[in-house]
Amino acid sequence: MRIALAYKQLEYVPEAIHLLKGGGEQHQDSYKKLNPQSLLPAYVEDDLVLTQSLAIIEYLEETHPEPPLLPNTPTERAKIRSLANLIACDTHPLNNLRVLQYLTGTLGLDEDKKHQWITHWMAQGFEAYEAQLVKLETGLYSLGNTPTLADLCLIPQIYNALRFDVDLTPYPNIVRIYNQCMAQPYFLSAAPESQADAY
Amino acid sequence: MRIALAYKQLEYVPEAIHLLKGGGEQHQDSYKKLNPQSLLPAYVEDDLVLTQSLAIIEYLEETHPEPPLLPNTPTERAKIRSLANLIACDTHPLNNLRVLQYLTGTLGLDEDKKHQWITHWMAQGFEAYEAQLVKLETGLYSLGNTPTLADLCLIPQIYNALRFDVDLTPYPNIVRIYNQCMAQPYFLSAAPESQADAY
Repeated sequence: MRIALAYKQLEYVPEAIHLLKGGGEQHQDSYKKLNPQSLLPAYVEDDLVLTQSLAIIEYLEETHPEPPLLPNTPTERAKIRSLANLIACDTHPLNNLRVLQYLTGTLGLDEDKKHQWITHWMAQGFEAYEAQLVKLETGLYSLGNTPTLADLCLIPQIYNALRFDVDLTPYPNIVRIYNQCMAQPYFLSAAPESQADAY
Repeated sequence: MRIALAYKQLEYVPEAIHLLKGGGEQHQDSYKKLNPQSLLPAYVEDDLVLTQSLAIIEYLEETHPEPPLLPNTPTERAKIRSLANLIACDTHPLNNLRVLQYLTGTLGLDEDKKHQWITHWMAQGFEAYEAQLVKLETGLYSLGNTPTLADLCLIPQIYNALRFDVDLTPYPNIVRIYNQCMAQPYFLSAAPESQADAY
């Protein structure tokens, strides 16, 4: 969502929600009023409160179509959404904080098993993404020569991979796209370490 | 996807992929050529092969807009997509076959722990969905009086919940919407037990 806002040059007031401080600020009533699910992000515009990254980005795309994050034919849009969902539905949900907390807390997994879990699902996701890139004839970005919704989903997952020391060498196209994106100011300014609340 | 095809009265030739037979037909080369990720569904239209349910439904919506599965204002569309993603990104991915197989196989969880896992994430998802329904002023369906993308994501997750004996009484709106949907022929004809390969 932050990358979409930066790419479309939309001004907004960021509100930091610390995921670990005091058991996680996302579980506090003030945040749960916005999102009863206690998950980030939430996007607030006057009376409208939106949750779920993909829904927010599609909304920004519809209300601020330039520069576009989706191509203009249904077929090409579908390919982009398919790549985006490969990350957003099949990869990210298995490795987010609440799942890792359940694995080590409720299930009592040790750090090794937790790391195995993370690398297993990331590898499954990246392998499939890489295969799709080859099949779909990737460009400078995942598909084509401008960033799309697919790249916006991919890049944060690569931050995660790097954080957990996942080996990315089997995915040359993904690494190439990551380097391409990280040379762009709107990706850089949206990176976690560029936030006021970076820790 | 099946519900969308039925609702929009689109003819198609179903191809049954048995998830358990012979270690899972989705892992065979013939299917992996369509979807290297070995996940269902795949939608094939001439040379176009699409994967990921949400991407396929958005494509069907763009190419066959009537009857619509998304409302016509960006705000209302965003609310529907947010509900849809709550299921598709935050609930379904944690309880699908490959994850359950990893839990009982690689991690060696027993049936009790597996059931705890399933009910934990389903309860989280349904609780959040129910809270959003109350907040968004639900109608006959999740939002409004005609079925949308949100209902198409919700209903298959309820099949799953019933299969695993998850208690749905804490979610009166979800149960009401389920009953409403199951009285419609396009939901009924798309239900798992109505397929030629039902088992």
